[in-house]
Formats: sequence, C-alpha cells, structure tokens
Amino acid sequence: MVTQPSTKSKIVRPIALMTDFGSATPFVGAMKGVIMTINREARVIDLTHDISPYNVIQAAMALKSSYSYFPKGTIFMVVVDPTVGSERKKILVEAGGRFFVGPDNGVFGLVLEETPAENVTNVKNRKYFLEKISNTFHGRDIFAPVAAWLSLGTNVSEFGPQVESIAELSIPQATVSGDYMITGEILFNDRFGNLTTNITAEMVEKLTEAAGEDSVQISVKKERIASLTTHYAEGKGASALVNSWGYLEIYLPMGNALQELGIETGEPVWVSQR
Amino acid sequence: MVTQPSTKSKIVRPIALMTDFGSATPFVGAMKGVIMTINREARVIDLTHDISPYNVIQAAMALKSSYSYFPKGTIFMVVVDPTVGSERKKILVEAGGRFFVGPDNGVFGLVLEETPAENVTNVKNRKYFLEKISNTFHGRDIFAPVAAWLSLGTNVSEFGPQVESIAELSIPQATVSGDYMITGEILFNDRFGNLTTNITAEMVEKLTEAAGEDSVQISVKKERIASLTTHYAEGKGASALVNSWGYLEIYLPMGNALQELGIETGEPVWVSQR
Amino acid sequence: MVTQPSTKSKIVRPIALMTDFGSATPFVGAMKGVIMTINREARVIDLTHDISPYNVIQAAMALKSSYSYFPKGTIFMVVVDPTVGSERKKILVEAGGRFFVGPDNGVFGLVLEETPAENVTNVKNRKYFLEKISNTFHGRDIFAPVAAWLSLGTNVSEFGPQVESIAELSIPQATVSGDYMITGEILFNDRFGNLTTNITAEMVEKLTEAAGEDSVQISVKKERIASLTTHYAEGKGASALVNSWGYLEIYLPMGNALQELGIETGEPVWVSQR
Repeated sequence: MVTQPSTKSKIVRPIALMTDFGSATPFVGAMKGVIMTINREARVIDLTHDISPYNVIQAAMALKSSYSYFPKGTIFMVVVDPTVGSERKKILVEAGGRFFVGPDNGVFGLVLEETPAENVTNVKNRKYFLEKISNTFHGRDIFAPVAAWLSLGTNVSEFGPQVESIAELSIPQATVSGDYMITGEILFNDRFGNLTTNITAEMVEKLTEAAGEDSVQISVKKERIASLTTHYAEGKGASALVNSWGYLEIYLPMGNALQELGIETGEPVWVSQR
Repeated sequence: MVTQPSTKSKIVRPIALMTDFGSATPFVGAMKGVIMTINREARVIDLTHDISPYNVIQAAMALKSSYSYFPKGTIFMVVVDPTVGSERKKILVEAGGRFFVGPDNGVFGLVLEETPAENVTNVKNRKYFLEKISNTFHGRDIFAPVAAWLSLGTNVSEFGPQVESIAELSIPQATVSGDYMITGEILFNDRFGNLTTNITAEMVEKLTEAAGEDSVQISVKKERIASLTTHYAEGKGASALVNSWGYLEIYLPMGNALQELGIETGEPVWVSQR
Repeated sequence: MVTQPSTKSKIVRPIALMTDFGSATPFVGAMKGVIMTINREARVIDLTHDISPYNVIQAAMALKSSYSYFPKGTIFMVVVDPTVGSERKKILVEAGGRFFVGPDNGVFGLVLEETPAENVTNVKNRKYFLEKISNTFHGRDIFAPVAAWLSLGTNVSEFGPQVESIAELSIPQATVSGDYMITGEILFNDRFGNLTTNITAEMVEKLTEAAGEDSVQISVKKERIASLTTHYAEGKGASALVNSWGYLEIYLPMGNALQELGIETGEPVWVSQR
C-alpha cells in the first residue's frame, strides 16, 4: 500500500505534527504508521492534535509560537483542513531552514510574516502519495507520505512545481490609536483558562514607556486591571502579563479566567493610560 | 523489577499501542517505561488511548481501520480489557506479517476477518512477564513486557503453546435485502461528530449501480439525505459519504452531526432507492 | 536560540515528561523541540500532561506510582509549577540511579520517601538554559534544556551548587487506630472513575490478618463494602481492591464510581472489622 524507499538516506529530518483530529480516534496513529513504513528511523513529535475543529487561526498561532524552538530541518506537517478533497492546493513551504507541509489555507501565514518563504511547492507528484487516495483523509494519504519522503532528504523540487502565491489568512490585528490606546481581542485560551490576546509585547512596551508602568489600565468585559504582573503568582484577581509567546495575556491566579470571568475568544481588550 | 535482555538483537519491531486508559493517568507511561527497560531501542507509537471505557467493539474497529498502514513486523498491543485478572486468556496472534498482543476478548476479530491468523499463542511463559503481577494492570505487568521481548525478535513459540480457537466478538452487521434496501447502524463517532456506520463501500456501490447514483436515499433518525457527496466541503446540511475507512459516514459540513442532529451510536441507518 | 552541544556524547538517558499543561496547546511540543535541538537522539516519553491544573499532590502520586518501571538513568522532568517565575528554586535530584528535574515544590516528595536522594542540585547555571527566559514558561526555557543536557551525560555538578534541604509536600496520610480501624481518604481518580485512597496494602493486610478476610468492612459516603475483591470483574456494586499502585481502591464494576456513586477526591474512607 505504501511505496518504500530503495536506499536509506542518512538524513533524518524530524517531523512535528499538528492537527485538529483529537486523540479519541486512530487517525494520528495511522499517519504515523504511514510515516514509519516509508522511513523506519523517522522521529515524529506531536505539537498538538487538539486544535479546535476547523480552526485555522488557532493552528496558525500555535505553530507560530512553537516552530522556532525546533531544530533546523524540522518538517512541520499541519493538517487542519476543513475543505479536504476540494480544489484547495497542497503546499510545501521552505522557510528559515524548516519545512511546512499542509493544505493551502493560510495556516502558515503567521510563520511566514516573520520568516519569509524561500520557496513554495505545489505538491502534486503522486509518486510520493499513497497509491489509493481517499477524499476525506489527505493527512494519511498525501501529507504523511510527503513528510516521510522529505524526512529522508528528498529534494523539495521532486514534489511538484514552484508556485508564486499562497492563500492568505485573515487574522484580527490589534491596533494602536494616537493617544496611546491599544484595541485588541482574545484569540486563544489554554487549559488554565489563560487568555492570549493579539496585543504584542512591543505595543505594550511602547505604551508603558510613554505612560509609565503604573499608569496602564487593561479593560476586558467587566474587569479593570490596574497594572501588569511579571509572573502568575504575583497577580491578585483578574491579572495580565506578557506571556511566553510575546502577547498580552489575561489570567486569574490559581483560577480559570475563561470559566470564572466568562471571558471568551473574540472578546475585545483595551489597554490605555489610566 | 524488569528482566533485561542479555544480548541485544538487531531486530527492532515497532510497537503500536491502543488502550482505553485515557491520558490523565500515568498508566500508559508506565507501560512505556517497562518496554524501554527491556528494549532501549523500542519504537513505540500511540494509536489511541481514548477508546470508550470497556468498549471492545470500538477498539476492534479502530484497529481494523489502521493496522494495514503500519509496516510489516509491527506489534499491536491492545489493552481494552474489562475482565482483567479473571480467567480470560492472554493471546499473541500473528497475521499478515504483523503481531497482535492482548486479552482474548475478540478485539482482534475484525482484523482477522480480512487477514487470517497464521498462528495464535496462549501467552503463558512467566519468564517474559514482570516478576510481580497485579490483578488489575496486565497491560503493565504482562502485555508490555511481552511486546517488548517480541520487539527484540523473540520467537512467538517462546511465549506459550499454540491454541486453535479464540474468543469471538459479536459486532452488529449491516444487511442487504433483495429489493436493494441496506439496513445498518451507527457504530462509531469521531471528534468532528462524524458518524461511521457498519454499511460498507461495497454495499453502497452495488445499490448505486443498480439504482443510479442520484436515486439513492439515506435515512437516519429524522434526516433524509438525497445523495452521496465525495468530500466534506461538498455537503449541505445532513450529508453522507464513503469515508477513509471504507464505510458509509453521516456528517454535517463544518458542524457536528452527533451533537447537532442528535444521532448517536446504535441509531439505525437505511439506504434505499428513492 | 538554543545552545547546541559541540560533541555528541554516547550516553543517551531517556527523558520522561509530566506536566499539567493538557494536550490542547503546543506547550509540550515546544519543550520537545528544545530537547531535540540540544540532543537529536533524545528519547522522550510522556508520562501524562493531564495532571489537574496546579495539583502538585496528584503529580507526586502519579510519579511515585510509575518511576520504578523506567530504566536506571531515566530523567523525570515534572512541570506542575503554579508559582513559576517566583523565587521558588529549580532543583535536580538524583535518587535510585534516576534523575528528577523540576520546581522545588515538593513534587518529588513521595518518590524520595521510598528512594532517598543521593544529591540535590540547585539548578542555576544559565549556560544550560535558553538564552531568553520568560517568567511564565520555565518548562520550555529552563527545565527542557537542562533535561536535554543531562540526557547527553552532562554531570549533575555542572548545573549548580548542592543544597541540603528541599521543599516538603503535605499529603494527607491514612492512620491506623489501636482497635483495627483505618481512616483514610480518596486522593486520586482515573478515567474509569476508580478511586485511589491513601490507605496502603500493608495497612489493609494487617487488618485482614487480625480480623479475617471476611470480617472487613469498608465505608465511604453511603456505601458499605463487605469484602475485598482481587480483580475488577469479581465485584458487584460498590467494590474495593488493592490496586496496581499498592493502595486501596474503590470501584464500580463496568461503571464509574466517581460519577455514579458521587464519591470525590477528599472523601473520607474507613476500613474496620465487621
């Protein structure tokens, strides 16, 4: 069922997987089986498989926040793909010495904003797909074998022709108005109910430089947060800090801001002078 | 605590794990620790650990849908074992060049329907178990060490005597009646709320050949689905397609058929001429 | 971003990870990326990432129940760290030929009760941290690189000075009163709703030796359990056995004692003569 390599290359590029498949089905396992059939020595790491179903923006943020911690040569295979089986392209992007394989739906957009693509391949060469391709599971039938062959050192140009443009993703941007008011929104929550905004560390720094560290106020829903903390244990009640991804984050110390404050993804956030 | 091999074999067979242990406990981790103590070079892949508790049928389907994507030589260790510690046998099945280790409760039944067993071993040789065996965790104390020794190339006959018969699993079968009416039911749902039936691609094909592609109607609960789609994005409202496992599947595009249509496992499904 | 080793050591110590990060975010993936950047050959195993948020006691129990199943040399990296970024120390403990890396909050306490520490290092040498250290994610910026360097064989003394004492964890202990009455409580539940108490196998054995196996009664909430079973399938209604961790466990055969009997963590449990 799976074509196997005739000679074993010495190159073994790690493969990092991200999907919205969840963990209750053997979908991810089947992809790993395909990868291992092609490259017995493959090193596969799970980024997460619990991206909210169909949520390309969340996947783009999760990828951007973590890719740079992986070694050069890593292949990121991202399958959040609500239009699987339709005419959307399958792409392979090389950027910053790393590889990104997945549907052409903008999921690599945030990475490419900070690390421009060196080349983009329209993945078309059926030689590197499974023989039988379903309409509903390209992760197993197309992306997994492509990632596996790539992990063996197969040249990017083997997979198809270069393309000039890729699909863009529309992600809400925070804005700064002249009088030092930042307007953003909640984009992401984690398991602790901590809420990541789209307001960057740079935006916050400029405001605190102008207004003074103690003259900042953050407003979100009914909460008025009077200053920034530097770590979680420092906060009391609704609190905010610049998190490990470089974004402003709203949190509740030893609690769950999502559940206890009822603040959800999409909620507007303002940062201003007091 | 764990016996370790005296010589290191060159053979390293991959081990694929499936259980109903969930991810909130270190049970799976302890099994991997045992495997790694015996075989430092073991390559372990998680199929899923979120099989519904005690659900042997779901485990059998998940295994059948994925085993063939793994390389020959792979050892599938499946621990969905509600009667652990009772008199049920522990078996090791060789089929299609792969190995299947687990309790003798029918969980390998669907695989063996399409790939007949070459031999079945009654796993009894305590030499390959942990020294101290609990009554409640054979995954850690028996199946993990057996899989680890097998991964090192230990011969099947070492683990115990051959047996002639294994436990059977009663899985609801879809039926076809003379006038091109298929009667089946929902067997499985995934994270997207997509609902896999026990109606096979072959059954559906025969009906569409006889009736014409546009003359098919699928009935499930209050839904009447008027034709098959080929991929998810093509559907509008309640939809159906033949999925990547080769079964008829009911789905709701960009939605969740399980939750929004209230269709659950066990619900009958009919496919007929319109 | 990550310092890489100049020469590749032959020693590869496995790394076992436990956190309360959950699986819905790429936090664990980013830590694995850091580890792999430093040690391409690292062997990383997940113990669990679904420890209840901030629950150091649960983490301590999960670690104690599984560490001895891993080979000597294994590095346990445990990040359940509600006070990340505060003044709490970061420690590296060597005990029983294994290594334990994490915040100094008592999470290694139960292990060290049965396997005394050979030495404890105050992890301070920034040479083995990431260059840029966030205040909120020491798992990625400190513990992951330290574990990775340790996995390459770096000497414990390289990471910082020895310390004499570490933080203690206050875990509720079961007590035995003179007239053979054991008083304990529920400490932990698993996915099956099985409830682990803090009553040890030894305590139960002494009582059954004195009172006779059939003269024991277990009381928890409204349930009166009249005898111990040896495996799950043997029970009828609310049942109890000594589980694979060596503790008394309350369970409901083919059911969920947590949900169906409404018995939660913290509930008192009594074992007495009938």
